[in-house]
Amino acid sequence: MDQLLRVHCFNLSRDGFGAGENQSLERPFGHADPGDMFAWAGATASWPNRTDPGGTRGLDDYFTRDFARNIGAEIMGRNKFGPQRGPWRDRQWRGWWGDEPPFHTPVFVLTHHERPSFTLSDTTFHFLDAGPEEALERAKAAAKGKDVRLGGGATTIRQFLDADLVDTMHIAVSDVELGSGVRLWQSPEELLDRFHLEVVPSPSGVRHHLFWRR
Amino acid sequence: MDQLLRVHCFNLSRDGFGAGENQSLERPFGHADPGDMFAWAGATASWPNRTDPGGTRGLDDYFTRDFARNIGAEIMGRNKFGPQRGPWRDRQWRGWWGDEPPFHTPVFVLTHHERPSFTLSDTTFHFLDAGPEEALERAKAAAKGKDVRLGGGATTIRQFLDADLVDTMHIAVSDVELGSGVRLWQSPEELLDRFHLEVVPSPSGVRHHLFWRR
Repeated sequence: MDQLLRVHCFNLSRDGFGAGENQSLERPFGHADPGDMFAWAGATASWPNRTDPGGTRGLDDYFTRDFARNIGAEIMGRNKFGPQRGPWRDRQWRGWWGDEPPFHTPVFVLTHHERPSFTLSDTTFHFLDAGPEEALERAKAAAKGKDVRLGGGATTIRQFLDADLVDTMHIAVSDVELGSGVRLWQSPEELLDRFHLEVVPSPSGVRHHLFWRR
Repeated sequence: MDQLLRVHCFNLSRDGFGAGENQSLERPFGHADPGDMFAWAGATASWPNRTDPGGTRGLDDYFTRDFARNIGAEIMGRNKFGPQRGPWRDRQWRGWWGDEPPFHTPVFVLTHHERPSFTLSDTTFHFLDAGPEEALERAKAAAKGKDVRLGGGATTIRQFLDADLVDTMHIAVSDVELGSGVRLWQSPEELLDRFHLEVVPSPSGVRHHLFWRR
């Protein structure tokens, strides 16, 4: 089977923003409250960052458990990797995730400012100054036949959508309004010319949006 | 993590029957029409018996793709394995699934009439005259740390529920009425003393019932 490019468990506000404004070290999602956005995922048994046993195994868990299934690499934008902009002033920065990042595969960070690769546990971060096509080619080679996850943020997903490279997307729309920030869409209907869409309301309050190519 | 006993993609009629009456070689589900019951699953990209590419990747596909995830063995009742009852008259019978059964693990068939194990492709069928506890113990050992799928039919699932051995269940309730047959429940509410339940309607018309232990 072909290698797919898949978006999983990407959170969006009701008004279409993946993060708020003014991202900083203290506020990775800017003025958005990550508790509001991600509570549905953190409650599930399969949440990759879960440290204690337990958690729900209902509908939401089907989405968190699919995060790693048959994934061989991730592509992310630089703003998902960290709060710095421009040339790297601090190469000590190794992502938000501590010594055990939840990716467990090669990760390609898109940036105009390359720096040496490094490895934390079973995740290796590579820094790539490349457009979507070239980045996907590199990630597919690293994924060794498995699929590639497109990790976000919204601007990065938008770039890959505009290049028509995305095969499937799971977008969880939370019932919060941000007013401004990093926008993925005005409305999911923008994508219906190229994608099937099913909208599945969850008992947790999020509405799961499932896209796959027409 | 513990090894779970999981029911996946088990189909039920609106009135609680997993199969109709009078199972035969020609009608594995008795008077029930498998087309009515399983159409939702057959339409998905991840349906294990799919031979052509394509298929949907919406909600229903999350359930068919979970069929094999982290499964190391299956337990099934004899009536899922074949239409014969009593002592084996025909040992040539090797299941409904041809030379490439969709299980890809050891399968334990519960029967009072044991016969030698045999292997088809990467599935090995064992025949076991045992109660639920012993069968589960055997299957867990064979699963080498992975979970065990409880494959049905309804009578077999009922036995394992009565022994309180089931950890999670995905039951897809189709919008058909059978009137009689092999019953799983009068109502899913019977199980609410021991399980959480989420009911998720799918655009395909089935209602996915997701159970996990309280």
